[in-house]
Amino acid sequence: MKKHTLAMVGFGGMAGWHYDLIEKLDNLSVAGIWDIKEQRREYARSRQIHVYESQEALLADEQVDLVLVATPNDVHKSIAIEAMKAGKNVISEKPVTLCSADLQEMINASKQYGRFLTVHQNRRWDEDFLTVKRLMEEGTLGEVFRLESRVHGSRGIPGDWRQEAEHGGGMVLDWGVHLLDQALMFFPGVKLKRVYATLTNVTNQLVDDGFTADLGFANGIHMIVEVGTSNFISLPRWYVLGTDGTAMIEDWGENLKIVRACGADEEDVVPVRTAAGLTKTMAPRREDSIFTEERPEEKSDICDFYRNVMAVLEGREESLIKLEEVARVMRLMEAIFESAQKQQVIYFEK
Amino acid sequence: MKKHTLAMVGFGGMAGWHYDLIEKLDNLSVAGIWDIKEQRREYARSRQIHVYESQEALLADEQVDLVLVATPNDVHKSIAIEAMKAGKNVISEKPVTLCSADLQEMINASKQYGRFLTVHQNRRWDEDFLTVKRLMEEGTLGEVFRLESRVHGSRGIPGDWRQEAEHGGGMVLDWGVHLLDQALMFFPGVKLKRVYATLTNVTNQLVDDGFTADLGFANGIHMIVEVGTSNFISLPRWYVLGTDGTAMIEDWGENLKIVRACGADEEDVVPVRTAAGLTKTMAPRREDSIFTEERPEEKSDICDFYRNVMAVLEGREESLIKLEEVARVMRLMEAIFESAQKQQVIYFEK
Repeated sequence: MKKHTLAMVGFGGMAGWHYDLIEKLDNLSVAGIWDIKEQRREYARSRQIHVYESQEALLADEQVDLVLVATPNDVHKSIAIEAMKAGKNVISEKPVTLCSADLQEMINASKQYGRFLTVHQNRRWDEDFLTVKRLMEEGTLGEVFRLESRVHGSRGIPGDWRQEAEHGGGMVLDWGVHLLDQALMFFPGVKLKRVYATLTNVTNQLVDDGFTADLGFANGIHMIVEVGTSNFISLPRWYVLGTDGTAMIEDWGENLKIVRACGADEEDVVPVRTAAGLTKTMAPRREDSIFTEERPEEKSDICDFYRNVMAVLEGREESLIKLEEVARVMRLMEAIFESAQKQQVIYFEK
Repeated sequence: MKKHTLAMVGFGGMAGWHYDLIEKLDNLSVAGIWDIKEQRREYARSRQIHVYESQEALLADEQVDLVLVATPNDVHKSIAIEAMKAGKNVISEKPVTLCSADLQEMINASKQYGRFLTVHQNRRWDEDFLTVKRLMEEGTLGEVFRLESRVHGSRGIPGDWRQEAEHGGGMVLDWGVHLLDQALMFFPGVKLKRVYATLTNVTNQLVDDGFTADLGFANGIHMIVEVGTSNFISLPRWYVLGTDGTAMIEDWGENLKIVRACGADEEDVVPVRTAAGLTKTMAPRREDSIFTEERPEEKSDICDFYRNVMAVLEGREESLIKLEEVARVMRLMEAIFESAQKQQVIYFEK
């Protein structure tokens, strides 16, 4: 018998991913699932996974100490609160709610019922993100002044509840929640002063199918966070500018490429001559004036998310995902919607 | 004897470029030059180019009907007005002045003295720009909703007057003037509603050494115009998003790359599985669902700038460079400085 037992409410694509992950863990087992769709329950049975008779039956199971809420976004709150009321600790899928007020209700319930609540911010374990974070900490690029984080696809947005506003669809909530969380993790304790955002509605008029957020931090760093779903050619996943060099990660799983000045000055710049003019300023560097380096990405183990959840339940660790961090990202998403709607800069944190 | 005769005030790097260009023209010759620096005059003499005794002597030369002003930016206005007063037609280097009020004085002088005034907006002949313009006109990408124009170098800004604010230095005036002019040429008659801009001061504190301008046009098109001089890895020169596909030009002189959906739907999307999660939305396209095409750039002949100037003087053509277009770009540069300084969106054209 494993130490902790989890049950899942909602058994869509992400829940399947969680199930496979939990199977690798020593101290966590899955007792069963509940889904409002018969088709998903049938699928669980076909995989020999126990299906409860109802959500109430699941919450009444005394062996369960942890409930994963992996439903559409609009019902995370009510299910999580029900679960905590029933004495369960809760992991909610992201985005935890559709607005920061709803999250506050969940935090209040967590305090009221004395249960642990956390959010599956899995992309804090993204190896590309960890690689850029390490790079920033090392100072390899000198003083970083600009950071660009983009995720580009060309499939539009998924045709399920993710394209319906009332269920919390749209790319700000779906992918923005990851990229904005990562953005805020770079500079702990630094205020985000300014937010300017635009949304796209290219393949979908009901919810945003992409966005660009221009973020101005109090430390002077300028950050671009962008999601696109009509991009048949992708711009690089990460692009980082420092006083001494530039770094880039082209795509998922690719190397970090760093190009730095190596100190040797070029006296004899060869101008770039185009059909209509010439430029020395924009002429490429001679190879002997730069230093180019490629590094593999940092390694991570997403199982550490669950290991930390269990360590928190056992009083051994603090949660890696702080609810105040999650709330700050929720407020930032609200600022993005407000900026795009008003077509104004939002002064986010004073 | 050629039909038209030009004299140059200022004989720095760009004037040399003009000189070589004019040598190719049938109906234009260079009578001589004036430069306030003895070193530049000496250089002209070493090339067997006539050097006038003074700017006044140059303007008094009756055979000269056209004066090229290729000095630092802050003295374009006074020299151009002097020249028109002396009965000469004038080509000014870009940016024509440091502010739109100064340009208005020049336009007034042009009317008062009945002389032709134009600006050397040479990068309207950039082949990459013409290629993207053609692409937009053709509609190959469906409805274009986003357009990104970037020029990235890593040499900081030139160490001459171009790094001094009083001479009109900085990248908004130096490169912005080209890229913003190109931006406005895409959509003639369409109002530019919103401007949000940030400047950089990475290698230079006196003037901007880069900027990003986020432009919102009345036709719904969102455009990014960006200049960077501390970018050791460059992002693509052009990036264009349409409802049916994406286009990119990587660098000066490179092909236009177009990737479009080819209509075949993919039923079986293979999710991208990263260390920390999986995504169908951002999974790359299967090769059989897209159509990839490369095209060489359009060809242009920058001599057409001078041919047009002469045709205007002979009453055969209208000027390809309209002063109201130049004035609009000047106002846009002012809006960029204002936006960056106030950290606000500027509502540019009502």
